[in-house]
Order: sequence, then C-alpha cells, then structure tokens
Amino acid sequence: MAANDGHALAYGADPWTDRAIGRFRELFDADVEVAFTWGGTGANVVGLQCLLHPWQAVICTDSAHIVVDECGAPERFTGAKLIDLPSSDAKLLPEQIRGQLRALGDEHHVQPHVVSITQSTELGTLYTVDEIAALADAAHAGGLALHLDGARISNAAAALGVDLRTMLVDTGVDVMSFGGTKNGMMYGEAVVFLRADLGAQARFVRKQAGQLSSKMRFISAQFEALLSNDLWLRNAAHANDMAGLLAESVSVIDGVEVITPPQVNAVFATLPAAAVEPLAEWSRFWVWDEERHLVRWMCSFDTTASDVERFAAGVAEVVAAHS
Amino acid sequence: MAANDGHALAYGADPWTDRAIGRFRELFDADVEVAFTWGGTGANVVGLQCLLHPWQAVICTDSAHIVVDECGAPERFTGAKLIDLPSSDAKLLPEQIRGQLRALGDEHHVQPHVVSITQSTELGTLYTVDEIAALADAAHAGGLALHLDGARISNAAAALGVDLRTMLVDTGVDVMSFGGTKNGMMYGEAVVFLRADLGAQARFVRKQAGQLSSKMRFISAQFEALLSNDLWLRNAAHANDMAGLLAESVSVIDGVEVITPPQVNAVFATLPAAAVEPLAEWSRFWVWDEERHLVRWMCSFDTTASDVERFAAGVAEVVAAHS
Amino acid sequence: MAANDGHALAYGADPWTDRAIGRFRELFDADVEVAFTWGGTGANVVGLQCLLHPWQAVICTDSAHIVVDECGAPERFTGAKLIDLPSSDAKLLPEQIRGQLRALGDEHHVQPHVVSITQSTELGTLYTVDEIAALADAAHAGGLALHLDGARISNAAAALGVDLRTMLVDTGVDVMSFGGTKNGMMYGEAVVFLRADLGAQARFVRKQAGQLSSKMRFISAQFEALLSNDLWLRNAAHANDMAGLLAESVSVIDGVEVITPPQVNAVFATLPAAAVEPLAEWSRFWVWDEERHLVRWMCSFDTTASDVERFAAGVAEVVAAHS
Amino acid sequence: MAANDGHALAYGADPWTDRAIGRFRELFDADVEVAFTWGGTGANVVGLQCLLHPWQAVICTDSAHIVVDECGAPERFTGAKLIDLPSSDAKLLPEQIRGQLRALGDEHHVQPHVVSITQSTELGTLYTVDEIAALADAAHAGGLALHLDGARISNAAAALGVDLRTMLVDTGVDVMSFGGTKNGMMYGEAVVFLRADLGAQARFVRKQAGQLSSKMRFISAQFEALLSNDLWLRNAAHANDMAGLLAESVSVIDGVEVITPPQVNAVFATLPAAAVEPLAEWSRFWVWDEERHLVRWMCSFDTTASDVERFAAGVAEVVAAHS
Repeated sequence: MAANDGHALAYGADPWTDRAIGRFRELFDADVEVAFTWGGTGANVVGLQCLLHPWQAVICTDSAHIVVDECGAPERFTGAKLIDLPSSDAKLLPEQIRGQLRALGDEHHVQPHVVSITQSTELGTLYTVDEIAALADAAHAGGLALHLDGARISNAAAALGVDLRTMLVDTGVDVMSFGGTKNGMMYGEAVVFLRADLGAQARFVRKQAGQLSSKMRFISAQFEALLSNDLWLRNAAHANDMAGLLAESVSVIDGVEVITPPQVNAVFATLPAAAVEPLAEWSRFWVWDEERHLVRWMCSFDTTASDVERFAAGVAEVVAAHS
Repeated sequence: MAANDGHALAYGADPWTDRAIGRFRELFDADVEVAFTWGGTGANVVGLQCLLHPWQAVICTDSAHIVVDECGAPERFTGAKLIDLPSSDAKLLPEQIRGQLRALGDEHHVQPHVVSITQSTELGTLYTVDEIAALADAAHAGGLALHLDGARISNAAAALGVDLRTMLVDTGVDVMSFGGTKNGMMYGEAVVFLRADLGAQARFVRKQAGQLSSKMRFISAQFEALLSNDLWLRNAAHANDMAGLLAESVSVIDGVEVITPPQVNAVFATLPAAAVEPLAEWSRFWVWDEERHLVRWMCSFDTTASDVERFAAGVAEVVAAHS
Repeated sequence: MAANDGHALAYGADPWTDRAIGRFRELFDADVEVAFTWGGTGANVVGLQCLLHPWQAVICTDSAHIVVDECGAPERFTGAKLIDLPSSDAKLLPEQIRGQLRALGDEHHVQPHVVSITQSTELGTLYTVDEIAALADAAHAGGLALHLDGARISNAAAALGVDLRTMLVDTGVDVMSFGGTKNGMMYGEAVVFLRADLGAQARFVRKQAGQLSSKMRFISAQFEALLSNDLWLRNAAHANDMAGLLAESVSVIDGVEVITPPQVNAVFATLPAAAVEPLAEWSRFWVWDEERHLVRWMCSFDTTASDVERFAAGVAEVVAAHS
Repeated sequence: MAANDGHALAYGADPWTDRAIGRFRELFDADVEVAFTWGGTGANVVGLQCLLHPWQAVICTDSAHIVVDECGAPERFTGAKLIDLPSSDAKLLPEQIRGQLRALGDEHHVQPHVVSITQSTELGTLYTVDEIAALADAAHAGGLALHLDGARISNAAAALGVDLRTMLVDTGVDVMSFGGTKNGMMYGEAVVFLRADLGAQARFVRKQAGQLSSKMRFISAQFEALLSNDLWLRNAAHANDMAGLLAESVSVIDGVEVITPPQVNAVFATLPAAAVEPLAEWSRFWVWDEERHLVRWMCSFDTTASDVERFAAGVAEVVAAHS
C-alpha cells in the first residue's frame, strides 16, 4: 500500500528497487547484480539467455522445470538445446557433466555451455553445499557456467540452515533465479547474477523477453518486505514444517506411502490407484507419476496446522472408501 | 485485498478471471476470447504470434510501439518482420497497405500477413471509426488480419465517445491488446481475440512467451474492478481532460508551442532548445524528437488539476530562464 | 555438363527442375510436391518447419540425426522441441507415441505435433512397411503428422525390395526428406510433401532457411539422372551389397564382432579397445560408442569389392597388432 | 572433374578446401578466416550471426539485399533487427550511422551493433576506398562492427582497379561475404572474417544454419579455380564491360533512358510504361521500380557482345512497338 502512494520513476529507477537490490546484496554478502522479472519462466529465460549462444546447450536433469514445465520457453527464446539427463532424485551428478564434454568442438553437436540445477529440486530433494560446489567445479573445469533455478531457494536455505553466501556464492554458482511468488509474493521473481559481469546485457534481454515491469516498484516493494526481518526464511521454514507435519499425518493411513521423508515443502506419496481421482476432485493436486499413483502435495507459507489436519482427514476418508 | 483472501486455483482457473473475462464480453458486446498477460510488450507479442508464421510480416507505421519501444521483442519472438511505413501523424493509410501487397507470392520477400495499428496512436492522434473500418477492409481484401495495439484504447474510447463494439468489433479488428497498466492498474494487460478462433492456441503461446501468471486472480481482480462502473472510462476521460488543461496552460507560455490540440492524454510541445534539459531535470519526461526540441508530456488517471498547474508554472519558470 | 550449357531461369523455373519433380511423381506414383534444398539438415529443417508451430514438439528417438547431428538446427529454426525417446535399435514404437499424448492440452508442456522417424535408421536398421503404417496410424490418431528423414531412403528401398508408393504413400507418411548426396550426388536433397497441401508455404520456408539455390538446375539435373534408369536403386543396392561383403570379411577376424548383420550399407562392429584409435588413424571412420568400442563403417555407391578387401585386411592387421 | 576423382574427408577437411582458403589469404594479403557456405543468403546469415546478439541491430540501407531479398532470413536467424535507412543510391553515409547511436544504452530500443554495406551495391553503385574507410571509422567509433555483403565484390574490384587488401583490409571491414555464384560458380559463397577472431564460432553457426556442405571439396575446387590466374577478376571485368556496351547500345533507343552510366555489371534504365511487360515476356528481367518503369538488366561472366547486340535490338523493336 505504501508503494502505491505518490509517483515514482518507471522501469526500476525508483527507491524501492534500489532498496530491494540492496537487500539481495546483504543476504548474498556479495556485490551481485539483480534483475526483477514478472514470473519464474521469465526469470529462467532471462538468466539463461545472458549465458548462451544459440548453438550451445544446457545440461540438466529430465525433471528440470525448464525442461518439463515451461512449454519450451527456454529453447524458444535462447535457441539453445536442453540436454536433459536421467536422474531418479532430480539431482545432477558431476560425472554427468563430464560425460557431455566429449561433444565440445564437434560442429555437428550443440556445444554444452551451461549446467542448470534446481535447488530445492522438483522432487523436493536438496543439494548439499558440497554437492553444489562439486557441480560448479565440474562445470567450470569444462568452461561451462553454473545456473541455478531457485524458485524454491528459500525452502532450501531454511532446510539446510546455511546462509546464501555459503550455499551460492562460495560454491561458485554463476547466475540464478530467486523465487518470490511461491514464497508469498503476488508476483515477481529475481535473476541474480553472482558474477556481476554476466548481467551486463540483462536489461536488454529482459526487455526483449517481455519481462520488464513499468511500475516495477510494486515488485520491488514486495521483495523489500520479503527479504526484511527474515520473512523469506520464516515463510519457507513454516512451509517446510507443515510438509513434515503432513508427511507424519498421512503416513499412518493404510494404503498411503510417503516415498521419502520431506526435505522441504513437498510431500510425495503413493496412493491406491482408485483413490487418486476422487481425492483430487475433493482437493486439487498434481499427479506426479500416473503409473505409480504418485502424487505431490505442496505446503506453503500460509498453510496452517489445521489445514494439514483437515487434509489428512480427507485423505484417510477417501482412501478408505477406495481401497 | 479481497482477492488476497483465501486460496484459488492457479493459472486463471479462478472465479476472478471468469468474471473479468465476462466484463470484456459485456463491454465488447461480443463473444471475444481474452488472455491476460503481464505487460504491454507481452500482450503485443502474444497477440501477433497467434496470427503469424515467421516468413510473414506486419505492416505498421514507423512510430509504432512494436517497432520503436519493445527492443525487438515482436520480431524476436515471432520471427516475422515489421514493415514500418512513414507517417507524420502515426496513422496508417489504407493505400499504404495496398502498396505492400505486391510482395505476396514472391519467395524472396517476407509475406505481409498482419496490419497493426495503435489506438490512440503513439503521437496522441486518433483513428475515427470509419478509418479503422477502411483499414480493416484493406487488410482483409489482401488476406491480412488487423491487429490493434490498445495500450491506450480507453483514452480513445473516452475521446471518441463511442462504445467498444462500434469502434472495434463492427469495424473488423481481429486481435487487439487492451491496456490496463496505463489506465491505473499495478500491472496486467489483456489480449482480446475479437475473432475468437484466432485465440485457439493462445494458451500455449502465452506460456511459451513467459506471460502466464500463476496467481492470475491478482490481474483479473484489477480488470474486474477497472471494467466495472465505467471506471476504465472515467479514468481515461480524466486523463484526457488533464491533457487538455495542460495544453491550455502551457500554450500561453512564450517559447512553448503545443503542436496540435491534444486528442487524448498526451501533450506534444516544442520548447526552446536550451530549456529541454533543465526542465527534464526538474521533472523527468520523454524527449520525442531531439532535433525539433519536441517533448511529450503525459497525463494519467491520477493527475490532478493542481499537478497541472504546478507543472505549467515550472515550465514557465524554466523556459523563461533559458530563452 | 549438359545442364551447364546455355542459360536457364533461376530459382527452379527451369526445365531440369520440372523434369526432376516429374521423376519423383513417377517413383512415388502420387501427386507429391517437391522442394529441393542444398543439404540434409536443410531438408529436415524445411520439412519440419512446414508442419510445426514453435510451441509444438517432435517425437523421435534419441539416435535421430535431427537430435544428435544437426547442431540444434531443427529446434533453432522451428522453435519447437525435440522429444527424444530411448531406443536400442533406433526405431520408434507406436506405444512411445501414445505415451506422449498425455501432454496434449496442457499449456505448461510443449504440444507433440509431429513424429519423425528415419529410414533406414541411424543404426542401419529398417522399419518394415507394416511398422511404418502402424506409426502413421498412431501419429494420426493423436492428430500428429508423420515426418520421415530419408537421407538413406534409397538403401531402405533396395533392401526391402518395395516400391516407394507402397513404403511411403500407402503407409501414410506426410512429409519426408529424400537423400541425394549420400547416394552419389555432389549436393542436393529433396523435401517431398506426400500430402501436397502441407507444402503450400514451402517456398517461403526454404528461402528463409537459406536453402534456395539460384542455379537450381544443377541440383535438378543430378536428381533427374539419379532417378532415371533405376540409378538411385542400383547405387543403393550396391552400397548395401558391399556392406554385406564387409561384414562377412571382418566377422572372421579375431576380436572383431559385427553386432548385427547389416540390413543396409552400414556395418556396426566392436573392436578391441586398443585397436580403435590406430585403425581410425589409418582410415578415418566414426566411433559410434566409445565405451563399447563400437564403430560404424559405411559403404557407398562407389565402394568396390577390392576397397572392401583392402579395408578388411587393414582391420585384421591393426587388430592383430593391438589385441 | 578432378575433384570428383577418388575420396576425400568430408566437411572441409580436404586439400581442396585448404588450398582455396590459402588463395583467399593471398588475395587479401592477410590472415583471414574463411567459411564456405552454399548460397548468398546463407553467407550473410552466418557472417551476421557471428557478430550479433538478438537484442542488437544492423544498420543498412533500405535497398540492402539482406532487407529486401532474403525473405527475412537474417532477422529470423539472428533474432536481431535490421534498421534500414533511406538512400537514393543504395549507399550508406557515416552520418546515418552516427544518427543511430543515440539508442545505445536504452533498453527499450534494439542496440545497433553492426553496420552492413553492399559492394557493389544493389543499385550498381560503388563505394570508393575512402568511403569504406569512413564508414568503418564511424562504425568502430560507436563500438559497431562493419559487415560487407560482397556478392558482387569482384565486379567492384574490377571497376575500382584496387586490390582486396586495400579495399577491404586496410579500410577496416570486419566480416564479409564473398560471392562465387554470380561470378561463374555453380554454387558456393564464402564468409571471410577479416578479423579472424570474429570467426571463432563460425563452424557451429554454419552447421546450425544448414550451410555446412558434406562434400565441401566441390565448393572449394570451384573457388580454387576462380581465385587462380585472376579468373575472378577477368570474369568480373568482362561482365562490367558488357554492361558498358549494353548501356551504350540501348541509350540511343528512343524512349529508353539509362539513368546513370553503369559502374559495374548492371544497367538501370527507364522504359515506356507499355513496353515493360512485353519486353519482359520476350526476355525475363527484374522490374526494379514499377512506378518509374525502371528495370534492371544484368550482364554476367558469360554474356557475349553478340548477346548484348541481340538484346539491344530486341529492346529497340519492342519499345518502338509500344511507344
């Protein structure tokens, strides 16, 4: 509401944007460059475009959001190819990077130039700090940059209990997206250039990608608030806690199996086949793998313990009726 | 604030979005399809992409926002070429369309397939209803579609005093963008498919263009309010009135020439060369043509008469000091 | 040489091009449309572009030339994504197509719209006529088109002993590339639109793709000769025969294993690890899979029995020295 | 014919290609990098792509082949915009470059990064050595690169009587295309990187652009011959001479006006309106400007004096019949 009072210069030349970027620099404890975008696909597209020529390629897992859930936007916009490698836990391994370097120099093949990982991953798993560092080393050794899709980076920070500098700067991440929407904002994401020089052309990329907000202060004001007083971390920790509670509550239900203890704010569970559809009708969620009857339940910054209780009761009832 | 209460399905499957689209259908008095986007460049890109193959071209004026102010986004995303024709008043003529049809069928040339006009134009001028109809006829006669950039369509409706059906549906516009941000919204624009079949693939185009909002209800709720109780029209009429007042106030200042009475919410005026920079330092605005010392002053939904008075006084002072 | 005599209209408006297209129509026994291109990547790009919007996708195997060997040209040019599915013999299965149709209608996912197969495949295997028909049925049932990369279609026709109409028209292939270069031409490939309407925009696509030859008669004259007097079939049959001879000759060498009897003109064999590099130094070839020491040896229209004999002797010698 | 004898490594790893590149280095008297392509559009696309990011732009004239005659291929492939400036003689002026530099740094505008000129121009005019140097200076002063479309560079060299080093290296051209087809080759053009570092990624760009010839020796052998014994210069000088003869022959015909003495191998002439169509039916040519009845007649390496005589007689007859 405060940001709505009075006038401000458009396109980011306003004090809210200055202050929000300042918060990022404090949290990362580094002189990062920051470009705000509308949404998560936009943040990934802008960040990747700053790293890529169209005859190059991005190494990632076959669960990556950029591969599966962005309707081809990264390839469409950058012209580059995504090399999506198999991974059972949605985590990439340094060996997988090294295995792709053979293509370097062969004009018949796209040239790997970026590694992209997601933290926390699409399957709710986490890279440790050492694992990120090892991936950065493998990427840099081959002349590749490390990109990180951080739509849920706050949940990772809360779960790992490490600060952003340790997790992201010291390990060697080059460019990342930093999620706002999934952590409580109405809209707005950030591209963070940990190597500030990589963001030199970001303004043009962002505008051409249709990701430049004219009244940017409304994104910035949200980020300023989110990054103050540890709100980002408290929101994320709460969501993680609720997922823990949910896993606990549903794991005692006959026919429901939580496939792994949740590390962040997602619970992945298998259900009796016949229960999936009626349950989803009662309360919509994402069926992750139809063949395995594996579903994904997400908790968020505003999920309450009583929400969890009510949902678990519903699961118990529907599953009982369809087992 | 109301839209922020409770949960809703994401990506537009919420009641706010349904209601907002309903408002568009009422205002256009037609069964239009509507796709909300983040910003104006996004709205133009999505609308044009639904009409174009990459070997085709868009006929427009050399003042068009899609040509001048979108950092090449339309060409980049659609692959198509913009054929920007000279126009002293930013209005396209039917003859200019017909002159381009010669290229049809020649494989060495891009194939004109869309005509794009802006209402009100980038120079603050207006197409009459008959002029739009004549352009639509010329376009359709050649097998081309008519696109309209309506970032300021509300100002045009207020100035012309005609309803949207008469101005846009009955004349034969095929696809248009409908501005929200410039008329008071925090963010959010709409692509309106007046020929609904042209929007059949719009969902995919919008997602691939990075223009799909997950918490779409926050865009929809704004449009719902804007399009209710004539707020869109009152906002626009007010902005137009303030421009009229501003033109009147500055035209009496020695050295300032308002080049044409404002038709909508923009005042274009020439200043003494030496006054441009100091005035812009005092209150930032857009220099439209550096060589002619021609500047553009915009009024908006929240400009007040005392804002105008204060600004005119400032102009008088600075111009006097630098004449 | 004859085509070099005198002048002709450029860009295909010459009698050689007319006659060459006529030959295609005779061989396919159908009113196909034909567009000549410079090379094989160009032929694939032009054919696929005529079928695709950029938010769509192509289903193929992970051995497909369009995936592995064209430096990302198909994605770059069409904007569409290649969904490359695993296959041990480089052949796609109808079930694999059906498994991808779930994504249809979901705006977060690219929309499968084309199936692309290669005949003969990149691994030297062949689809039977019935297999092609089953793939066409599975594709068409989902509203997808069937594209065929026929860089080595002549070798397939010779090996299967079926005419082109039976193999390609009656089965339901929609668009294909037809290889010239690998079958004896200096340069020049063809895009054949078996559903002629799909080629309606091919002229513009070809020009924009940089695949329009000004002195096209030099491509056409080669195709006219190749497609006359069964030269295309004799060349291919000869190459196939030489591969059979080669397989026979090397399979008796200790340490060399021909992994499957050649169906067309490629021999795939495993060697002792230490022998690969010295052998390739003596006579350059493609290492297909470094980990398995699997190499590919191709025979061509001008390979002679004594070439085969000499090469087999070289293999025997090098392998003996490095076992 | 000699290049067709025996086998050679594919994709340019053959001795013909080595020797042909050597000839380029001799003629330019500089350590240039050279990449052969199939055609002229391909050569322009590959050269420009090596210089451009997609948010950048190319400054050129509105007669430029890349603007008018390549069906949008340069924009489509590079994503960048062509800023085509008016020019009555198809020659760009240094002031026109400087006038575009204002956009640098403004994220709403594409960023000029390349200047592209054509020598000899599309209107048959010539840049002097000093003019090229002045354009290079203006481009470089703004941080832009100078690209030259040399589809008819041989005609320019013959007309100006200057060596390639003086015209192209010493003046500061960065990248150019060098035409083969219009000067007698069946097919084949070259991209010449006068600043060799700019060609570092050209191999990948060329492959992705579908411009890599597998049997490249057939292009190289033609260039080797063309660039030996001054054949390229003799062909071009002859074509220029024939245009001089043609201009002389037709200028005496009542109703025909040669608008300017030909500098290279093109004659531009106006005809009586009624004569254009019947004359073009008798012998096809390009109508340059329908409104002015301005036509273009090209002479080539194999035009003979008796061809010219016969054509001039035909013009006289048809014009007399339709005046």
